[in-house]
Amino acid sequence: MPAAPPRAFASDNAAGAHPAVIEAIVAANEGHALAYGSDRWTAEAEGRLGELFGPGSEAFLVWNGTGANVMALATMVHPADFVATTEWAHIAVDETGAPERIVGAKIVGLPAADAKLRPEQIDALDRYRGDMHHAQPGVVSITQSTELGTVYSANEVAAVCEAAHRIGMVVHMDGARLANATAALGGTLATLRSFTVDAGVDVLSFGGTKVGAVGGEAVVYLNPTLATRAKYVRKQVNQLPSKMRFVAAQFNALLEGNLWIELATHANAMASHLWGLTSEIPEVVLGAPPAVNSVFPILPSEAIAPLQEWSFFWDWDATRAQVRWMTAWDTTVADVEQFAAGVRHLLG
Amino acid sequence: MPAAPPRAFASDNAAGAHPAVIEAIVAANEGHALAYGSDRWTAEAEGRLGELFGPGSEAFLVWNGTGANVMALATMVHPADFVATTEWAHIAVDETGAPERIVGAKIVGLPAADAKLRPEQIDALDRYRGDMHHAQPGVVSITQSTELGTVYSANEVAAVCEAAHRIGMVVHMDGARLANATAALGGTLATLRSFTVDAGVDVLSFGGTKVGAVGGEAVVYLNPTLATRAKYVRKQVNQLPSKMRFVAAQFNALLEGNLWIELATHANAMASHLWGLTSEIPEVVLGAPPAVNSVFPILPSEAIAPLQEWSFFWDWDATRAQVRWMTAWDTTVADVEQFAAGVRHLLG
Amino acid sequence: MPAAPPRAFASDNAAGAHPAVIEAIVAANEGHALAYGSDRWTAEAEGRLGELFGPGSEAFLVWNGTGANVMALATMVHPADFVATTEWAHIAVDETGAPERIVGAKIVGLPAADAKLRPEQIDALDRYRGDMHHAQPGVVSITQSTELGTVYSANEVAAVCEAAHRIGMVVHMDGARLANATAALGGTLATLRSFTVDAGVDVLSFGGTKVGAVGGEAVVYLNPTLATRAKYVRKQVNQLPSKMRFVAAQFNALLEGNLWIELATHANAMASHLWGLTSEIPEVVLGAPPAVNSVFPILPSEAIAPLQEWSFFWDWDATRAQVRWMTAWDTTVADVEQFAAGVRHLLG
Amino acid sequence: MPAAPPRAFASDNAAGAHPAVIEAIVAANEGHALAYGSDRWTAEAEGRLGELFGPGSEAFLVWNGTGANVMALATMVHPADFVATTEWAHIAVDETGAPERIVGAKIVGLPAADAKLRPEQIDALDRYRGDMHHAQPGVVSITQSTELGTVYSANEVAAVCEAAHRIGMVVHMDGARLANATAALGGTLATLRSFTVDAGVDVLSFGGTKVGAVGGEAVVYLNPTLATRAKYVRKQVNQLPSKMRFVAAQFNALLEGNLWIELATHANAMASHLWGLTSEIPEVVLGAPPAVNSVFPILPSEAIAPLQEWSFFWDWDATRAQVRWMTAWDTTVADVEQFAAGVRHLLG
Repeated sequence: MPAAPPRAFASDNAAGAHPAVIEAIVAANEGHALAYGSDRWTAEAEGRLGELFGPGSEAFLVWNGTGANVMALATMVHPADFVATTEWAHIAVDETGAPERIVGAKIVGLPAADAKLRPEQIDALDRYRGDMHHAQPGVVSITQSTELGTVYSANEVAAVCEAAHRIGMVVHMDGARLANATAALGGTLATLRSFTVDAGVDVLSFGGTKVGAVGGEAVVYLNPTLATRAKYVRKQVNQLPSKMRFVAAQFNALLEGNLWIELATHANAMASHLWGLTSEIPEVVLGAPPAVNSVFPILPSEAIAPLQEWSFFWDWDATRAQVRWMTAWDTTVADVEQFAAGVRHLLG
Repeated sequence: MPAAPPRAFASDNAAGAHPAVIEAIVAANEGHALAYGSDRWTAEAEGRLGELFGPGSEAFLVWNGTGANVMALATMVHPADFVATTEWAHIAVDETGAPERIVGAKIVGLPAADAKLRPEQIDALDRYRGDMHHAQPGVVSITQSTELGTVYSANEVAAVCEAAHRIGMVVHMDGARLANATAALGGTLATLRSFTVDAGVDVLSFGGTKVGAVGGEAVVYLNPTLATRAKYVRKQVNQLPSKMRFVAAQFNALLEGNLWIELATHANAMASHLWGLTSEIPEVVLGAPPAVNSVFPILPSEAIAPLQEWSFFWDWDATRAQVRWMTAWDTTVADVEQFAAGVRHLLG
Repeated sequence: MPAAPPRAFASDNAAGAHPAVIEAIVAANEGHALAYGSDRWTAEAEGRLGELFGPGSEAFLVWNGTGANVMALATMVHPADFVATTEWAHIAVDETGAPERIVGAKIVGLPAADAKLRPEQIDALDRYRGDMHHAQPGVVSITQSTELGTVYSANEVAAVCEAAHRIGMVVHMDGARLANATAALGGTLATLRSFTVDAGVDVLSFGGTKVGAVGGEAVVYLNPTLATRAKYVRKQVNQLPSKMRFVAAQFNALLEGNLWIELATHANAMASHLWGLTSEIPEVVLGAPPAVNSVFPILPSEAIAPLQEWSFFWDWDATRAQVRWMTAWDTTVADVEQFAAGVRHLLG
Repeated sequence: MPAAPPRAFASDNAAGAHPAVIEAIVAANEGHALAYGSDRWTAEAEGRLGELFGPGSEAFLVWNGTGANVMALATMVHPADFVATTEWAHIAVDETGAPERIVGAKIVGLPAADAKLRPEQIDALDRYRGDMHHAQPGVVSITQSTELGTVYSANEVAAVCEAAHRIGMVVHMDGARLANATAALGGTLATLRSFTVDAGVDVLSFGGTKVGAVGGEAVVYLNPTLATRAKYVRKQVNQLPSKMRFVAAQFNALLEGNLWIELATHANAMASHLWGLTSEIPEVVLGAPPAVNSVFPILPSEAIAPLQEWSFFWDWDATRAQVRWMTAWDTTVADVEQFAAGVRHLLG
């Protein structure tokens, strides 16, 4: 076997933090600053997020993605509402029932082969309106980019939002990989706005962790009428960082000069490169080129374990020998080439 | 007015992180490491915490104090149990109803002038056992050091645990300021064990944030039979850090050479010094010398606002003009002396 | 001992149903009627309740008192609100934590020697408004008549409502014994309105069970803006009777000719009579004459068990040898006299 | 049009109560009896239910079906468990999110064309065991007879239970129409036991309402180790009737002489008769003969509204013009024949 790459393709969560983030943490460690967000770093981060999304928006820094989603949903539902999402959604399958337990709402995972909700699926939810035996249509939650590595176009998001609003639902976007979607769709702040605030999204979970933070996310209320209970709910769902300056400093570093988009653009490009190199290997069955930073190849099943032992990655769907290779902000061209060489070596 | 001290006396949460913690974060930022705790820093931190409390214990790293408490309680209650604590308890008054919402249990805040539960109060809870109209005695939660800056002796904790266990309750200790209590009671690891595992505490919230971390706590199951659902519940209550190595690295830095006890010993000493200097000022009404790192003086009410404007601190009980001065791991003798001089200047 | 009375003084819950209620159930058992309230008995009951409280009100029939309270509160709180009530409140101490579990809100039991909240206690809750670390002032819940057998005057209720509304809270009245309070305060429908809708109460739990029903209560929204989610929440909290006509028929029987007030007037009178006869017995320590249908005497402690064995009643506060004697809609003068004779015989 | 039948085919919930049930209520209305189940009718009902299921079982009377299910599940889950059921399950789609809100658990509705879970589907859930990102396999809930009018054989239930127990799950049976299933499978008490206690079901919701009660269900713990918190949880989920004798009396009447099975046998027979008569009408598309008391025909869509106006029934799946005709304990042969005649008249 060739040498394994120093950075494997397990997850963007396996990457460390960007040096600018670390520097920002170091720099923020100066003297005393009031806790719970009454500090200048938080003011700056809230200001920067406000600039991204416009003056009506309100941003709240939190610890992690599940927490961001739970906080968002808890401020969006009425009693007896349900949350409609896809069968692939993180809130539906990867949060250990946190939304059901903490939000107290039913999460309905609708079928979606590409992990993207369709407006017609939302239209169909209107049949439950007024039925006292059924939870009521409250929130539509979409993930951008999705759990399957697909991306909604701005028009698609707008169509979802329009369908939802038409029947009195509000829209949450789980943006744990918002950066990768922004990069994929154009890579500018105008791109970001086009599929969030301009498309009609009400509340956004804005991910920092996967794109180079140590740990930090934001819940951004693009529809500020939903933010009235946000600061209480943040605390209530265990998402209020006491020394908040250290979360804020990370956001400030990532937002400075649009570093977060730059890093995601790079991660996406590395996945494309990996797709390109491995699609030439006959034993690797690949779909279309990746939209963002993950590739989901089907491999000869006997090859998976040796390959994982050489350079770890996760199974995706064991029943069909599908695995996931994911790039991160720090994946290098050499990492990709070494990894592809190993795959070729083992499978070829 | 004299110059205000560079570090005010608002809170130990207002302090930054100890340099060793920052260095540990920087050092942990090397390459890739699997997320959610499958990394060597977490293994080390769990090992270190295991050594502190013995082989039967199990430790889980989490984000913050409210989260640690909620996670602990959620694994300790049976359906329809209540949690008994004091009227001053953080879980009862400072967590925005998180325990009620997430744990789903009634929190009963018993009267306690010094924020310490008495065994007799626990004995009295047995009258509810078997009454189907009343929530059942499930968990006793005590805070060490308490919200009023008092400290349970090891014997007092043992008596609480014995009373609780006698009637089938289990004991949670909220140790957001565990370090300060450890320092106050002797300052050794034996001290720590004496009032936790040796005293019969079942589950411990072990605070890192207030004693010099950027942000990080641990839930430690001293009674491992209660830990069977812990890893699921941690995720479910939004307390599973993805890049966990960065929380673990902080703990490793604080536990190395018992730094955390050293820092708390210093913070406690600074509070004593502040008490000593300000108790000489006739207009400052003080109680007994502080056990840990906070002083609760009563001041002439017209002096409070000017003093806060000069060097900020929080009101405690506005109805009796009582305020709180709190020291931190980084409070210096000069800070104390400058602050005391300012108080004397303004009040004298 | 003299013969024990055929009806003891254990509880108004121990009484059966008034014959008119049983007749109404029998009469409602004719043929088919759509379930879940789409039947003519329910329409009639809702209409009758609407007439009692005015055209703006909306009534929802439910199974039981705890359910009525939980349903009411679940439609009244915002996320992170708390419910303020007294330390004696049924919702605080006699519902096995149902409000915390199902509503997800903190229940704060304020001290009240006579189980009546004072406006000043509500005023004081405003200090929590805006504090993100504390649950927010959401609902004031008062019980009429109270758990201690006291009654708020219409003016007292109005003052509570005014204080609550002034700081943005809404008011729930637990009227499990609304009939007894109505009887005590004048016994007319105008009386009823004076301390409910006219006084500013927002949502009312209207008790039928204790005043002669087999089982049935209503949640009445006097403030209809709070009713928008009521029908969904009723189902969600397990309080939607499928064959609702049988609950409605009971209400129709009780409301017809104000039977419910007549029955409560009688129960109250029986308690007064019992008080009168037993207050002459020197060993029985009684307070003021009862406002409604319960008496709370202190007895020689050695006499309690024999007396209970002769004719059962419940302990109230065992630490001071206080018991509770409660009359019901069917208590007779002979019951009272036989019981008083037994007390005199045993204690005299 | 011919005359509409006096009893329509809307639902078994639209039927009234059997005369024996009404008589039992009348008879139970004698004098005082302690509330909350400390009465002789409840002792009798618990005894009768205990005889049905054997000495290890424990029965708890409750108000309604959703409440019975919620109570059962709340005593069966561990923290972070999920409940697996079918996509048709009442707990998944007809309870307005009550299980999610009150139990706090994720409800997973698995695909099942005939509303019956297969053991292989349960086997597949084991892949989540130990995955801290996913709710854990806790409870399997099956409905007998199902929401689609199908029936599990005793062997099928046993296979489900075996699969569940093999992977550490426990089994709940929603028996809102337990009587109809018992009738369909043989109609004896041995039949009942064969697909419940003998098959390995842990906890049973035993329906009384649909088979002739005014309103009343029981939660029966066949596995008594799950019952330790039942009496507290019953109260906590709003399901503790205060004048419980009136619920108990209904059960006693239904259980006497196996009246409940007799009534269900009749209801099932009436559905068969209806199927027989209407299957001869070419415009009515019917599947196999009904197993229990419901028929799900597909009708010419323009005929549905006129038919419903003539004799009301509910739509089932509007997208395919499928409706539901349901018989009840009191449906007569004449009702069936009149209804079938009307269908023939309108469609023929």
